[in-house]
Amino acid sequence: MREFELIQKYFSGWPLKSNKLKQGIGDDCLVWQSDVPLVVSTDTAVQGVHFPEGATGAQVAARAFLPALSDLAAMAAKPEFFTLALSLPANTSESWLASFAQQLRSFSEQYGIVLAGGDTTRSPVITVTVSVHGSSNSPVLRSGAKPGDDIWVTGSLGGAAAAVPFVTGADPAEAEPEWLAAYWNPPLPVAFALQVAAYLNSAIDISDGLMGDAGHIARASGVCLCINLADLPLAKGLADQGSQGLKLGLSGGDDYQLCFTAEPGKRAAIEQLAAGLSQKVTRIGRVEAGEAGVNWYDGGQLITLPWQGYQHF
Amino acid sequence: MREFELIQKYFSGWPLKSNKLKQGIGDDCLVWQSDVPLVVSTDTAVQGVHFPEGATGAQVAARAFLPALSDLAAMAAKPEFFTLALSLPANTSESWLASFAQQLRSFSEQYGIVLAGGDTTRSPVITVTVSVHGSSNSPVLRSGAKPGDDIWVTGSLGGAAAAVPFVTGADPAEAEPEWLAAYWNPPLPVAFALQVAAYLNSAIDISDGLMGDAGHIARASGVCLCINLADLPLAKGLADQGSQGLKLGLSGGDDYQLCFTAEPGKRAAIEQLAAGLSQKVTRIGRVEAGEAGVNWYDGGQLITLPWQGYQHF
Repeated sequence: MREFELIQKYFSGWPLKSNKLKQGIGDDCLVWQSDVPLVVSTDTAVQGVHFPEGATGAQVAARAFLPALSDLAAMAAKPEFFTLALSLPANTSESWLASFAQQLRSFSEQYGIVLAGGDTTRSPVITVTVSVHGSSNSPVLRSGAKPGDDIWVTGSLGGAAAAVPFVTGADPAEAEPEWLAAYWNPPLPVAFALQVAAYLNSAIDISDGLMGDAGHIARASGVCLCINLADLPLAKGLADQGSQGLKLGLSGGDDYQLCFTAEPGKRAAIEQLAAGLSQKVTRIGRVEAGEAGVNWYDGGQLITLPWQGYQHF
Repeated sequence: MREFELIQKYFSGWPLKSNKLKQGIGDDCLVWQSDVPLVVSTDTAVQGVHFPEGATGAQVAARAFLPALSDLAAMAAKPEFFTLALSLPANTSESWLASFAQQLRSFSEQYGIVLAGGDTTRSPVITVTVSVHGSSNSPVLRSGAKPGDDIWVTGSLGGAAAAVPFVTGADPAEAEPEWLAAYWNPPLPVAFALQVAAYLNSAIDISDGLMGDAGHIARASGVCLCINLADLPLAKGLADQGSQGLKLGLSGGDDYQLCFTAEPGKRAAIEQLAAGLSQKVTRIGRVEAGEAGVNWYDGGQLITLPWQGYQHF
């Protein structure tokens, strides 16, 4: 199939429109008109690195699109439009492509984000780069955490990492369904992030694991994040795995959830909002003045975690 | 090298700044604030597809970045910022990376476009996706060509395609230097496009070859483009190759030049502007009413070209 036919067949005529998109697919560039600040993130997913060889089109769409969208949630930005750079081997089947496009279109409608442009090329390995563009008059940064803030996380931790053996060989029937869902199709806190934004001092997505990403808030804000291990909302079954489960929860990576900080006076409002959206949120510690970094507490004792954060390069 | 170290070492601290970039590399997203319409294009370059295995970092930077920038020129948009999605094999050397980053930084300064964000991942093959963002209050589209317009092209045609054998095996010393330059580091008409914008009715970049891309203007505008083969500014040496040279010039692809249309009354202004910028421009035909398509003329005779346009997928 030739490039124009492919775009025409699978990526044109999607129902979602935006009146701010003055020119979409079909010219040298897309044209976007809005005076609200634009918030942009880019993520790449590579076959054999971010998803296994046999992943379906729908699975790859999720693994490629949701990490980028999660970055918009972390800024509390409203999803607006995205571009898709799709590199495919010559032997990619039409059914794979149909499954990929169908899932992407479904995300586009679910999150209200318009496909506005992109590029398709040949490649020996499936490679998908998604650039998401959102809008926000007051994006929530990593740098706003203040001493006295509560530290919160959304969702649960470590499920996607716990799923890895079961998506790369082991029998998936033996995995917790929650782990597989966290790996293949995590529910992103996009709606919650938009509504809770006004209460927050800082936020980050913890896709590289809470251990590393909490450190980013600490350094960007010049504060100490004091986190209680006992309060962490580990994914189902991980608490029983002892330090191995804790490691998956803190540095396994691929948790498309948020860590955020907010003044204690906002607790009731945040909890009420979360309850209204059936969004799980958990308070895990407190921001303190002091040397920028993360202090981990186990039963009130400051401890040192015996491993490094997740590294994806 | 870990991701954060890599970004810190090679992609941080570049001197170019923009006061519209409210948040650059270092948070979940970049933040861009401007009320001028944003013009966006995405291009991917893959090792073994868009550049040969042994290409230097600087060569790959050019092959990845310039095609995207050319799309901004085709809209007559001012380059503003770009994101970089860089996927590299584990054995990539530091010297390759340094050469890549140095060339990209040099383009960033040359064209006044700020690196604002991106992603780095592992991959079995070098893959680079660049998303360029420009601004324009009145982007020039493909759809504005009018009967009576002159048809113009910038630069010369077919050089990059003629270079392919010499960058993939044959002795480069036997290639015209102009061909190699067109392949590795084409001079983009960015400054010319910005200044000439007000005179144009339509424009497109001819990176897929004039044959296919002129057809895009024709269909988007609902007009007939009548082009004289004898007027085409073929790259050096191609006219001597007969129909093979013509084929390279019309559908070899990778010509990062513009085809545009403008009323005949603008001729003198366009030529004066081009001369002031030492920008080669050539009139190659005329837009007529009629069935949307491209008519090719050889010595005044309407002919049919005996091959298809370039397809990159």
